[in-house]
Amino acid sequence: MVKNDNYFMYKAIYEAYKTSDSGDVPVGCIIVKDGKIIARGHNTREKKQCACDHAEINAIKKANKKVDSWRLEGCTMYVTLEPCPMCAGAIINSRLDKVVFGAHDMRYGALGGRINLLEGNLEYSPEVESGVKEKECADLLKTFFKKMRVKERTKSNPII
Amino acid sequence: MVKNDNYFMYKAIYEAYKTSDSGDVPVGCIIVKDGKIIARGHNTREKKQCACDHAEINAIKKANKKVDSWRLEGCTMYVTLEPCPMCAGAIINSRLDKVVFGAHDMRYGALGGRINLLEGNLEYSPEVESGVKEKECADLLKTFFKKMRVKERTKSNPII
Repeated sequence: MVKNDNYFMYKAIYEAYKTSDSGDVPVGCIIVKDGKIIARGHNTREKKQCACDHAEINAIKKANKKVDSWRLEGCTMYVTLEPCPMCAGAIINSRLDKVVFGAHDMRYGALGGRINLLEGNLEYSPEVESGVKEKECADLLKTFFKKMRVKERTKSNPII
Repeated sequence: MVKNDNYFMYKAIYEAYKTSDSGDVPVGCIIVKDGKIIARGHNTREKKQCACDHAEINAIKKANKKVDSWRLEGCTMYVTLEPCPMCAGAIINSRLDKVVFGAHDMRYGALGGRINLLEGNLEYSPEVESGVKEKECADLLKTFFKKMRVKERTKSNPII
C-alpha cells in the first residue's frame, strides 16, 4: 500500500474514533517521521477533564518522548481538524516540519480558518496542507454533533 | 499580608526559580481561585524534553486536576512572562477569568507583544493585566540569558 497523505489521514481518522466512548469531540492525530508513525493522539478533554488534552498536544507529547527531544524536525503531523490556537502554537513550538489537516474550522481554526497564526511573523513556520480527506473528517464531526443534539433534545423532552 | 497582584506575582517568580537546575528559561506561573493558590507550574521544556511543558500548561493541567474540570472559571493566572501563542490558546481553552503577566515578550508574546490572540474574535476572551512586577520578572530572564551567553563563550574558548 502506498503510504501517501490519504493513507496517513485515514490513520488519523481511525485515531479520532477512539473518542467514541468518552463524549469527546472526535479529533485524531498522528505524527510521522521517515514514513513511520511515531505517535498517535486523540482528543481526551472530556475524558481527562483537561483543557490541554487536544489530539495534537497528546500526539506531540508522545512524539517528544519517542525521539527524546522537544524538537520534532523532520516530522509531519496529520490531524483530522484544523488546529486551534493552542495546538497551532504547540506545532510551532515543537518545530514540526509540516502539518496536514482534514476539515477546516471556521469557528476556531488557527491556520487560516478563524485566524492564521502563521501570519504573525513568528520565528518558525511549518509547511501547511489542508483539505486532505476533508469530507470524511468533517462527516465524523457532523455525525457527532447530530448525536449530541438528539441527546440534548431527548434529555429536555424524555417522551421523544 | 495583603494578598494582592504583587503578592501573587512574587509567588510566580518564586516558581520560576525552580528552573535553575535544568537549564530551562525561568518562567513561573500560579493559578488562584477564591484567594488561594490552587496550582503552580514552571517551565520544564528542557528538563522533560517536551515542547508543550511551558509554565502555563503545567499549571493549567494541575488546576484542572484540582478542580476536576477542564473549565477554570473563577480563576486568575499569574505568570512572569507574557504567554506564547500555545499558552495564550490554552488560557482561552480553559476559560480562565483573568491573566496577569509580568514581563512583556515582543519576540513571542501572544497577548499584545508579538501578536494579540484576543483580537481574533475567538469565542472567549479572558481579562488581561500586564506589567505587574515587570522589572523583577524581566531581570530573571536577563540574568539567565547573560549566564547562557557566558557559558557559550567559555565553551567555544575554554581559556576564558
